[in-house]
Parts: sequence; structure tokens; C-alpha cells
Amino acid sequence: MASDIDKGQMLSICTEDDPAIFRSVLDRLADKWTLIIVGLLEVRALRFTELLDSIPGISRRMLTRTLRSLERDGLVHRKIYAEIPPRVEYRATELGLSLSEPVLALATWVDAHKQVILSNRETYDVALDGPDSSDSP
Amino acid sequence: MASDIDKGQMLSICTEDDPAIFRSVLDRLADKWTLIIVGLLEVRALRFTELLDSIPGISRRMLTRTLRSLERDGLVHRKIYAEIPPRVEYRATELGLSLSEPVLALATWVDAHKQVILSNRETYDVALDGPDSSDSP
Repeated sequence: MASDIDKGQMLSICTEDDPAIFRSVLDRLADKWTLIIVGLLEVRALRFTELLDSIPGISRRMLTRTLRSLERDGLVHRKIYAEIPPRVEYRATELGLSLSEPVLALATWVDAHKQVILSNRETYDVALDGPDSSDSP
Repeated sequence: MASDIDKGQMLSICTEDDPAIFRSVLDRLADKWTLIIVGLLEVRALRFTELLDSIPGISRRMLTRTLRSLERDGLVHRKIYAEIPPRVEYRATELGLSLSEPVLALATWVDAHKQVILSNRETYDVALDGPDSSDSP
């Protein structure tokens, strides 16, 4: 996988003509809920309540907001079925499906390394509280 | 690449025993500056001022804060050389290098699709301002 990517790729992206565009798009996508929703919609279309139930900890308001941003970016399509009561489904667009690949790779990495990271944080915090930093709270 | 990842991977991550740990780690990493720094340090160790110059738009304060978080997570190592004046270099740890692979894949995706996303946003905003939503500001 790494061989697909040039060394210095990030540097060339950051120093290109308009790095602000890259940053503004990355900033929107680099969001916990966005990444989770993009990952979930890779498999199949989901209703609002299905998404709500699949993502422990997200509020209705945050889910609504994130879905609207994803729709605005063209990553998610919102389809209303003329039923009573009306059924609303969210599915990934072609663009959204292409994004799910790097997103799932990142999520898989996080899932595989989360315990190591938690343990690194504990070690770091203990070292900070050690004898060399008695001026810390 | 996609074949490496099970369908439903995100669902299984989200519904596992303690999804809060996954989310807390993802939340820290899913940050524009974090992703850019991890991507930059893949190539070689960099000094603080080199990082500052390579990332247009980041403030000294935000760079300091992000580097400290990355050090706490065990993704970046800070090395002080006993010179006059002291030289401080940041390099990716083994863990940080392994993260740079999915991060660069995501950054490459964003770079390749940023114009489409900007154009989708414009289309969406124009439609919102159209005749069907005259109650909008």
C-alpha cells in the first residue's frame, strides 16, 4: 500500500498553490462522526434511526448535522420514499464509497492500536507527574 | 486495498464491547493538524521551525499543542541535541510510521477530490437558496 504513495506526498500537498482548499476539505472530513458514518454507509443504505442505533454516543442533533454536511459534500445521498410515514434513507454516493476505503483503513488502524495508545498516554502522564516536574499540579 | 477490509468492519468496531475507547482515540487522530504532521514526519525527522514552515496556516501554539499530543500518544519522539543553542527534532516512532500509511491514503484522496467536493458544496448551497426555500435568509 505504501508503495502507492510517494515519499514527500504530504509535503507536496501542503506546499502546493492553494493548501487552504486541501485543509478546508480535510478539516471537514477529519471528524470522528464523519469517518464513522462514511464507514457504516459503505455496506448498505441506512435509515436515520438505524444510524443512531449503530453509533453509540452520537446525539440526534449531531447525527443530523453530520449527515447534512456529508450531503453537502456530495458523499451521502438522502432518499425519501413516499410511504406513510415517509421513509428516509441515507446511502453513500460513488464519491462517498471511494472515500470509505481510506477511512476504513484508518479506522482499522485505530482499532488495532487503541490500547497501545491508551497505555502510551498513561506512561506519559505518569512521567509528567514524576519527581522531575514537581512544579506540575 | 478494499479487499483487506471486511464489509461491516466499521459496524463491528462501533458495536464492540467498548466503542468509547475507539472513539476517543479516533477523535484525537481525526484532526487536520495531526494528520498533516504525521504525514510530514513519515519522510524524515524535522525541527520545530521546519514543521512550522511546512504547514501554512498553523500557529506556533497549535503546533506545540499537537506535537505534545502526538508525543503523549507515542506517535512522535522528541529528541533534544545538546548543542548551543539546543536543537530539538521531532521524528515519527514505529507506531507513528505505521499510522502514516492510512493517513497518507486519506490525504491523497482528499487532495484528488477536493475540487469536486467544493463544487458539490456550491451546488448544494445554490439549491438551498433556490425558489423552493424562499423562507431561507
